[in-house]
Amino acid sequence: MTHNFNFAIEIIGTMAFAMSGAFAAMQKRFDPFGVLIIAFVTSVGGGTVRDLLLGIPVFWMHDIFICGVIFLAAVLAFIVKYFDKKFKVTLFLFDSLGLGLFTTIGIQKGLDAQLHPVICVTLGTITGCFGGIIRDTLLNRIPLIFRKEIYATACILGGGMFLLMLTFTSLSFTYIQIFTILLIVCIRTLAVKYHWQMPKFYTNSNDGEM
Amino acid sequence: MTHNFNFAIEIIGTMAFAMSGAFAAMQKRFDPFGVLIIAFVTSVGGGTVRDLLLGIPVFWMHDIFICGVIFLAAVLAFIVKYFDKKFKVTLFLFDSLGLGLFTTIGIQKGLDAQLHPVICVTLGTITGCFGGIIRDTLLNRIPLIFRKEIYATACILGGGMFLLMLTFTSLSFTYIQIFTILLIVCIRTLAVKYHWQMPKFYTNSNDGEM
Amino acid sequence: MTHNFNFAIEIIGTMAFAMSGAFAAMQKRFDPFGVLIIAFVTSVGGGTVRDLLLGIPVFWMHDIFICGVIFLAAVLAFIVKYFDKKFKVTLFLFDSLGLGLFTTIGIQKGLDAQLHPVICVTLGTITGCFGGIIRDTLLNRIPLIFRKEIYATACILGGGMFLLMLTFTSLSFTYIQIFTILLIVCIRTLAVKYHWQMPKFYTNSNDGEM
Repeated sequence: MTHNFNFAIEIIGTMAFAMSGAFAAMQKRFDPFGVLIIAFVTSVGGGTVRDLLLGIPVFWMHDIFICGVIFLAAVLAFIVKYFDKKFKVTLFLFDSLGLGLFTTIGIQKGLDAQLHPVICVTLGTITGCFGGIIRDTLLNRIPLIFRKEIYATACILGGGMFLLMLTFTSLSFTYIQIFTILLIVCIRTLAVKYHWQMPKFYTNSNDGEM
Repeated sequence: MTHNFNFAIEIIGTMAFAMSGAFAAMQKRFDPFGVLIIAFVTSVGGGTVRDLLLGIPVFWMHDIFICGVIFLAAVLAFIVKYFDKKFKVTLFLFDSLGLGLFTTIGIQKGLDAQLHPVICVTLGTITGCFGGIIRDTLLNRIPLIFRKEIYATACILGGGMFLLMLTFTSLSFTYIQIFTILLIVCIRTLAVKYHWQMPKFYTNSNDGEM
Repeated sequence: MTHNFNFAIEIIGTMAFAMSGAFAAMQKRFDPFGVLIIAFVTSVGGGTVRDLLLGIPVFWMHDIFICGVIFLAAVLAFIVKYFDKKFKVTLFLFDSLGLGLFTTIGIQKGLDAQLHPVICVTLGTITGCFGGIIRDTLLNRIPLIFRKEIYATACILGGGMFLLMLTFTSLSFTYIQIFTILLIVCIRTLAVKYHWQMPKFYTNSNDGEM
C-alpha cells in the first residue's frame, strides 16, 4: 500500500507543479511549447536535482508516464484558465499540496540512502522548492520562495516534524506522511490567509554591495 | 563514416553556439574572460545537462579539443564583430545550425541509452536549447527560446520527424540526420523571415499571480 | 598535514562564501530561511557542480559538518551586519579568500581525476565562481563576476600559475597552494583598490540581437 500511496503522491505533486508552471508561463504570454517546457521543468526540476545529488538515475528518464501527466496538466491548465477566472485559490491549493508531497518524497529518498536527518530535510526542501526556483529564474523574476509568505519555512518545519514523528512515535509511515503533507498545506494556507511573514533583516540598499 | 560525421557535427555545433554566446556577452560589454566563460557555458551547457541526466561522463571533461574550439570561436567572434557590422544574418544561421546539430546528437544519445522515443525528443530539445537558456539566464534576460519566433517548436518538430523517419523509412542514419538538421534550419529561417509565431495565451497580467 | 590543511581551506572557504551569500540575501530583505538557503547555495554551489561534472559523490551529502558551518556563518553574518556598519572590507576579503581557496581545491580534484591541465583550471574556475553565479542568478541580477573588476580573471591567472609551479618547481604542494591563494587575493585586492579592469568590447546595444 505504501508503494501505491507514494506513486499517487508523486503523480498528484507532478500535476500540481506542472499546472503552476503552465499558469506562470501563460501569464508571461509564452507560446504553447514554451508553456510545455516551463510546465516540464517546474514539475521535474526539484526531483531531478535531488536524484543528481544522490547519484541515482533521474526518475523521469525511464518513465514515459510522467511526461504524459505533465502534458495533460498543461492542457488542463489551459482549460481551467479559460473557464475559471478565479482559479487563484485552486492553483494555490495545488501548489501547496505539491510542496508537501514532494518534500516528503525527498526526505524518504534521503532516508533510503541512509543520510543524516538534517541532510534529509535539506534534500526534502530542495525537492519541494527547486522546481519553483527554476521556473521563476527562467521567467526572470526573484523566486517566489524568497518573496512571499512562509514557503521554504513550511517545508523545513514540516520536514523536521516528519523526522521527529518517525523517531519518537510508532505511527505507520503512511500516516506520518499524510500528517506532514497536511501540516505543510495548513502552514502555507494560514500564512497566506493571515499574511504571516517571517521577520526580515532590514538594511539600507546602498550598503553591503561588494 | 557516421562516426566522423557525428564528430564534425559536434565541432560545428560547438563553434556556432560558442560564437553566439561570445556575441551576446560582448553586447553586454563583458571583459574578455567573461566573454570566454559565456561562450563556454553556451556551447557545453546543453550537452552537459544531457550527460548528467543520462548518468554518463560529461563529454568535455576528457576532451581538451572542445576547449580549444571554444577558445578559437571566441577569438573568431571578436574578429567577425570587428569587420562585419551586418553579422546578424551569419550569426543567426550559425545558431540555427547549432540547434539542428545538437538536437540530433541528443536524440541519438537517448536512443543509445534505449530510452522511450518521447524521452529522446525531450533529451534532444534539452541538448539543443539549454545552452542558450543558461546564456540568457546569466545575462539576466528571459531566454530567447521563450521570447522569439518558433525555436523550441523547431526542435520538437525536427526531433519528431527524425524519429518517424527512423521508424518508417529505410534511409541511412546519416541521411536522416542531415534531413533533420536542414528541416530545423529551414523552419527557423522561414519563421524569422515571415515572422511566424505560435498563437499565445493572452491573459491579464494581474491574475494568476500566486 | 596536507590533508588537515585542505580541510581547513575547505571550512574557511565555505564560511567565507556562506557569509557573502547571507549578506547579499539580507540586503534583498529575505526572511531568515531565505537567507539560510542563499548562504547554502552560495557556499556549496561551486563544489556541487564540480562533483557532478567529475561524477563523484557530492561532497556535502555525507558531511553534516558543512551544514553546521553554513548555519553558523549565517548567524555570524547577522551579528556582523548588526555591529559593523563598515563590513564591506571584511566581506570583500572573505570573498576573495574563498575564491582563492575553492579554486585551488577544484584544480586539485581535477588533477586527482587525471584530467588535462586546462580542464583542471576550468574546473578550479567553476568551483571558485559558480557559487557566486548561482547566488546572483537567484537574486535576479547579472552575476558579479561579469560586472566588476577582475574576478574570473584572477581565478584563471592564479590557476595557471598553480599548474606552472607544480610542473616546473620542486616546491611542496602546500606552499604552492598558499602562494596561489595569496596571488588570487592580491590580484583581487589590487584590482578593486586601483579599479583595474580588463578592456571591454564596446558594441552598440542595438546590433547583434538575434
